[in-house]
Formats: sequence, structure tokens, C-alpha cells
Amino acid sequence: MRVLGVDPGLTRCGVGVVEGAPGRRCRLVHVDVIRTPADAELGSRLVAIADGLALAIEEHRPEAVAVERVFSQHNVRTVMGTAQAAAMAIVAATRAGLPVALHTPSEVKAAVSGSGTADKAQVGLMVTRILGLAETPRPADAADALALAICHLWRAPAQARLQQALARSSAAARVLAPRDRAVGE
Amino acid sequence: MRVLGVDPGLTRCGVGVVEGAPGRRCRLVHVDVIRTPADAELGSRLVAIADGLALAIEEHRPEAVAVERVFSQHNVRTVMGTAQAAAMAIVAATRAGLPVALHTPSEVKAAVSGSGTADKAQVGLMVTRILGLAETPRPADAADALALAICHLWRAPAQARLQQALARSSAAARVLAPRDRAVGE
Repeated sequence: MRVLGVDPGLTRCGVGVVEGAPGRRCRLVHVDVIRTPADAELGSRLVAIADGLALAIEEHRPEAVAVERVFSQHNVRTVMGTAQAAAMAIVAATRAGLPVALHTPSEVKAAVSGSGTADKAQVGLMVTRILGLAETPRPADAADALALAICHLWRAPAQARLQQALARSSAAARVLAPRDRAVGE
Repeated sequence: MRVLGVDPGLTRCGVGVVEGAPGRRCRLVHVDVIRTPADAELGSRLVAIADGLALAIEEHRPEAVAVERVFSQHNVRTVMGTAQAAAMAIVAATRAGLPVALHTPSEVKAAVSGSGTADKAQVGLMVTRILGLAETPRPADAADALALAICHLWRAPAQARLQQALARSSAAARVLAPRDRAVGE
């Protein structure tokens, strides 16, 4: 299975593609950081992130996209930009027909290092070891995106079973597909 | 000038198109609310909003898009969904080559009612009067979207002069268009 991990951000959006399976060695496929200038208009920054992510999906054909869950306790101004960058990843994945999973920073840290409170350096070090790289991917956003992808690869089997169960229980309750509704109005 | 106002929200996203000019009577062109089910996946909700807004732009050909500026003092969980819906409007406008303006709720209230602390009922009443409608558009998200468009029509001349001045002063400092950068990486 091949997973695209996205560490969302307006100034630096980490993009990492990893291939692997639970219990097997993970392999680095691609790593990049989409950067947008802080003085550019929000619209062009978001479009640049959306286009960069769509390009990464097209080129590297992941089967799932894992995005960092944006958290409420951060600075609210930053949170909104991060939530909007995350929305670009969620929409790019949905448009490509790929499942999207959100993982919290603690889940990602725990998955790669064994501790939910690991620091950036520990996460970078473990990503380097897990993927068998010669050096730690920089900046930290690149390593974080790879950690998200690894986290998803290792958590995916349990999450898939949970989502299937939830889908079965809510399928009857969902009346209209949102897309049909919007177009039909 | 024709303006699309967007009152962003995941469950109800208000969409209003108004035509007019400063000092002249405003005319209602279109009003709608894009709704997405709360139990649907975030990705399909955002895509439904993005597609609904792109359709409104295509059908009603506004020259500018005005979006409510998402505020920090609200409940943070709601703010993130609202910020993501707003991002759909900002991206749809940018992709259509339209300028985007953000107006705060107080600016919108002050523009249509003369008071920055007007309540929903007052805003609805004034939108009805300004547009010469037989009844107040419902739900409130529809009236709010129209109020945003009216606010933009009335504030646009001053804002345009300000933006031109800012653009002149920052043009020299901006080296790369973000879109070119993302594709070239």
C-alpha cells in the first residue's frame, strides 16, 4: 500500500509518499515541501498548495491520503491557515477518489517513536531509521509528512475495519449524496 | 458591478449575488444555500461546497467575491469547519480569476444597518429593504450572504484604491508567482 502524508501549512506544506504494509519495511517514494510566500494573497497560496498536492497524487498514485488533524489548542490565527491548507489536501484526495484519514500529532509521534510526546528531533530520527535513509529529511515539515504516512500504514488495517462498520451503520441514514444535491439545487 | 457574497459554513453555506454600484439601487440576482449533511465525510462536504460555488460563479458571472472573514473568538471546532468552507470560496474565486475580499461581520452589519452590532433580524430586514424584496430571504445564511455582497458593493471603491496602492508597493518585492513555483518544483 502507498500512502501520501500531508503536514498542512500555508508557508510550508510537507508532502511525503511512503510504500509499505503493516509489519513490513517501509520505503520512501517521494518527499517534498510546497512553499508559498507569506506576502502572497491567501487565494493564490491555497491554489498553489491544491495544485502541488494534486500533482503529487497524479505522479505518485497513492492509495490513501493521511492528513494531520488540526488542533484547537494552537494559536487561532495559525490554526485557520493550517485548517485551510488541510482542506486543500482533503479536497484533492476526495476529488481523486482516495480515502482520507486524519491523525493527531500524538498518534503520529506514538506510531513512529513509541511516545506520544516525542519531540521533532526524535520524530525525524525515527523516520530516518524506519525508511533506512542516509540523513533526516529537512525541514521538519517533510519528516512530519513522512511520519504521517508511516503512521497511516501501521494504523490503516484497524481503522479500515472501524470505518467499514461505521459506514454500514450510517448508510441507511444518508439520504442524498452531497454532490448531487448541490448540482440539483 | 456584480458581487457574489459567501457566508461560509459546512452545514449551510449562504450564496448571494447582487448587482449595483455605490449610491445606486442594488438588485438581487441570485440567492441560495448550499447544504451538506452533517454525517457526510468532510471531503465530500467540502467538494459539494466547492462545486456549488464554482457553479454559482459560472452561472452568474460576478466580478468580485466577498467572503465573511472567519473570526477567532468563536468556538474553535466550528471555526475550523467555517474556515475550510471559506477556503472553498477563496479558491473558487481565485481559480475563476476573480478578486476576493474578506469582510468582518461587524463591517457587514454596519454597511447594511448603520450599526456594527445589529442582530440577525435587523440585517435580514435591511437586506429585504435595500434589495426591494417582498420578504426576507431565509435561512439567515442566505440573507447574510446578500448582506456581504451589498457591503462589498458599497465598500469596494475605497478598498480597490487601497489594494492598488498596496500592490504597487509590494510588486517589486514579490519574486515568484506561487502557481509557477508549485508547478516548477
